[in-house]
Amino acid sequence: VSAESTLIENLRRLATHPAARGLRDDAAVLEVGGATLVLTHDMLVEGVHFLPDDPPQDVAWKLLAVNLSDLAAKGARPLGVLLGFPLGEEAWDRDFAEGFGTALAAFDIPLLGGDTVMGPRVLGLTAIGEARGPVPARSGARPADRLWVSGAIGDGGAGLRVARGDLAAAPALLERYRTPRPRLELGEALAPLVSAMMDVSDGLLIDAKRMAAASAAAVEIALDAVPLSGAFVAALGDGQEARLQAAAAGDDYELLFAAAPDRTQELLALADRLGIALTPIGAIAPGAGLTLTDAGAPLPLPPRLGWEHG
Amino acid sequence: VSAESTLIENLRRLATHPAARGLRDDAAVLEVGGATLVLTHDMLVEGVHFLPDDPPQDVAWKLLAVNLSDLAAKGARPLGVLLGFPLGEEAWDRDFAEGFGTALAAFDIPLLGGDTVMGPRVLGLTAIGEARGPVPARSGARPADRLWVSGAIGDGGAGLRVARGDLAAAPALLERYRTPRPRLELGEALAPLVSAMMDVSDGLLIDAKRMAAASAAAVEIALDAVPLSGAFVAALGDGQEARLQAAAAGDDYELLFAAAPDRTQELLALADRLGIALTPIGAIAPGAGLTLTDAGAPLPLPPRLGWEHG
Repeated sequence: VSAESTLIENLRRLATHPAARGLRDDAAVLEVGGATLVLTHDMLVEGVHFLPDDPPQDVAWKLLAVNLSDLAAKGARPLGVLLGFPLGEEAWDRDFAEGFGTALAAFDIPLLGGDTVMGPRVLGLTAIGEARGPVPARSGARPADRLWVSGAIGDGGAGLRVARGDLAAAPALLERYRTPRPRLELGEALAPLVSAMMDVSDGLLIDAKRMAAASAAAVEIALDAVPLSGAFVAALGDGQEARLQAAAAGDDYELLFAAAPDRTQELLALADRLGIALTPIGAIAPGAGLTLTDAGAPLPLPPRLGWEHG
Repeated sequence: VSAESTLIENLRRLATHPAARGLRDDAAVLEVGGATLVLTHDMLVEGVHFLPDDPPQDVAWKLLAVNLSDLAAKGARPLGVLLGFPLGEEAWDRDFAEGFGTALAAFDIPLLGGDTVMGPRVLGLTAIGEARGPVPARSGARPADRLWVSGAIGDGGAGLRVARGDLAAAPALLERYRTPRPRLELGEALAPLVSAMMDVSDGLLIDAKRMAAASAAAVEIALDAVPLSGAFVAALGDGQEARLQAAAAGDDYELLFAAAPDRTQELLALADRLGIALTPIGAIAPGAGLTLTDAGAPLPLPPRLGWEHG
């Protein structure tokens, strides 16, 4: 979107402090008095990021989860959040507060402050975290690194289709869409092992393309290696079309990372220890941009790689 | 507003961490590593906090200023901000970005990150600051303390009336409304000298009443001692009615603080040094609530003490 790009370019010109990372990473990284703070602010807009009849409890969960996912991608442990909340109908707001309490308790995160206003439902959340070790950037992927992803890809997008009634009821997929679980523990454990990391929020393909751009390198993804869940395969199969849909859908909140080949054993041991699949899905190469293969043969990129909201 | 109170009560129940200060202060105060962070998030909504035809540059200034004023009230030095921005018309957004750049430069504050979305104009800003000394709370006022205010009261409210065309053109008042200057340097210098401090954003009377409630004490204000600017007096006079208007109008972004009587000489010396008026306007007493006098005689509180937006 042209207006969006102009505004973001204008803001980038203001974001000259190194902590801002050029507004090209999942979060800002600020050193204060011996501590490394990781800061992120994400918004959810009614009618854009959630539907007016989505359960308010789930909107609250998602607002927290999308922000915590950014902290997870930087290996940071959450310290607390600030909520920006426009008041609307009393019942909706009460249900939101209930769900927000449930989500905060689930991740053991304190609510530190924020603001309530009168206005349309544009929800904002700021999450503050602390990194105890190195903070991986999006821009650190190097040729010869392997590209990995956690968990399964495509469930969030398929869950959205279930929510919209475009796909038959599938509770596991709906749950993954409505109450995603940010990979906090995994992100903290991965941070010292990876050369680049980000979360998969807008779609595997578009997020991988962003990592390629930030790292000034090429990213190759093997579509047939992209991990799918049993629930996804039961609903949509694992053919090329289904895999392309999975790879271009958003809302997965998995971690996408590049790591040197000699990290492979450590990564697989970590996957075992945490009980979370870590799957090599491609490689970093000299050059630029994203390329795709399926069963070893080149595959043109689909016209839509994911969400383009900035 | 009842819906608002319910929601805020619900959120308070979640904000049990001491850093949240029960959501009853201007900002959260979080100890991380060896640093004391001060965190605030304030929103501006089109049609509520600013008018659709206000210059976007001034909206940007105000968004930054209201947040920095919260940091000033806690004696914190700003480290950076995160912006939550819904994209709208390209021209408005461009002017906003220009004004935001001007405001960031004026206060030498880095933009660290944030989010851009598609949606109605509900602007959010998170400001992060660091306090190098004690962080005054709203709740620290003690009987026998004097109550003080910085600068002049009422210019912001009078400037809003100029902006609306309800009052004859008065550039000095309009400027105070549109581009308020948060008292950052003053706040940092006052922090070690005061027993309680907050900013005057919603109206002197309502903010003083909040300090009384937070401190479990009574606050007495002498209306005839409230400092007015020359521009205010030229436009509205300094009669009781004009003074009541000044004391119940918002948007001043001055500092309201309580200090022990033996701090008076230090405070007056500080006012001299910084060239900012510091005026004793009342006292803290045992009891509860806010009382008002004018020329020594008790005066009933006006029906409206200020902005009640939470």
